[in-house]
Amino acid sequence: MNTLTSLKWRYATKRMNGEKVPAEKLENILDAIQLAPTSIGLQPFTVIVIGDSELKAKIAPAVNNQPQITEGSHVIVFAAWTEISDEKIDNYIEHIASVRNVSVESLGRIRNMIKGSVEGKTPEQLLNWTSRQAYIALGTGLVAAAEEHVDATPMEGFNPDALDLALGLKEKGLRSIVILALGYRDAEKDYLSSAKKVRRDKEDLFVRFS
Amino acid sequence: MNTLTSLKWRYATKRMNGEKVPAEKLENILDAIQLAPTSIGLQPFTVIVIGDSELKAKIAPAVNNQPQITEGSHVIVFAAWTEISDEKIDNYIEHIASVRNVSVESLGRIRNMIKGSVEGKTPEQLLNWTSRQAYIALGTGLVAAAEEHVDATPMEGFNPDALDLALGLKEKGLRSIVILALGYRDAEKDYLSSAKKVRRDKEDLFVRFS
Repeated sequence: MNTLTSLKWRYATKRMNGEKVPAEKLENILDAIQLAPTSIGLQPFTVIVIGDSELKAKIAPAVNNQPQITEGSHVIVFAAWTEISDEKIDNYIEHIASVRNVSVESLGRIRNMIKGSVEGKTPEQLLNWTSRQAYIALGTGLVAAAEEHVDATPMEGFNPDALDLALGLKEKGLRSIVILALGYRDAEKDYLSSAKKVRRDKEDLFVRFS
Repeated sequence: MNTLTSLKWRYATKRMNGEKVPAEKLENILDAIQLAPTSIGLQPFTVIVIGDSELKAKIAPAVNNQPQITEGSHVIVFAAWTEISDEKIDNYIEHIASVRNVSVESLGRIRNMIKGSVEGKTPEQLLNWTSRQAYIALGTGLVAAAEEHVDATPMEGFNPDALDLALGLKEKGLRSIVILALGYRDAEKDYLSSAKKVRRDKEDLFVRFS
């Protein structure tokens, strides 16, 4: 199975060699992120794609100057929605109606369900929920990158306040949640490039009721 | 790109036909879940795999009797760790040492880093963090299922207290977070099987700094 071969090939690359990811491969990875399923299909996050060297250098301190930010080709920041306005829900409903060629009225039950679900959450619960949806997209993006033989490092170790400030996210109702650095491994500099992958044994990770 | 073809093929299947997923395909999907990267590599969750019909019927009410639970082949419950004891961290460090053939002592810095990170979190923050890791595995499992042409429906709409009780999770320090139902679509009964996929336009989902 191709996915497994790809998942075994990939690892959390610590050092990258500066090589650029070709545009077509990048688009394939972004397509996978776009296609990731999310709860109610809402995709309640925005994905910031940074290839510009100056901007990467600017955000590096917020990511503890980890080398992947500047040595990588593109930095993908998953920014979860911190609020979901009625307008956002209405836009979503109109988008469904348009794609599926049905009336907005026929989707009234779905709209009310989404509104009820959103209104029932505290701001913190909402952010946790929107963040989880972004992590599904992170998971699909990781697989897609590996399939393209592009190295991809998920990164949680950053200062979200500083990163939000550098990217102007807060005023857009966004919160940086997790980063995916894309690029190509520098096998010589990266001690992890030859390290065996460590994963919990299946007997430990899974509990089965056949 | 194969991943994209698979992601376009899949959809959140509402009705399944009862057909069993062959053992080899199931193992490939579980392998992808096992290989999913997680923060610090800790994999802080347990994955319950339920093929047994009686147990599926027992948990169905906790999942609002959604038909995928009993019509599907296997129900995969991602259960996040609600606590991370020193023993769990020590086990992890010993596992790394064993796989990579290095001394436990040489991993002291990593152990202290993990302990510090865990101790700095409230129980709620910890659960949110462990849950997010499970969502990465959900994302990779979704792609793997699609590659195997197995339908897979992520489900958040359930009563976690009731599900935890039915599966005896609480006493094991686990909390049910998200479900992935595996099986095969019943295209005739499922109104969604022929519906166009709705996703935000790339121009809307992505903000680019080339």
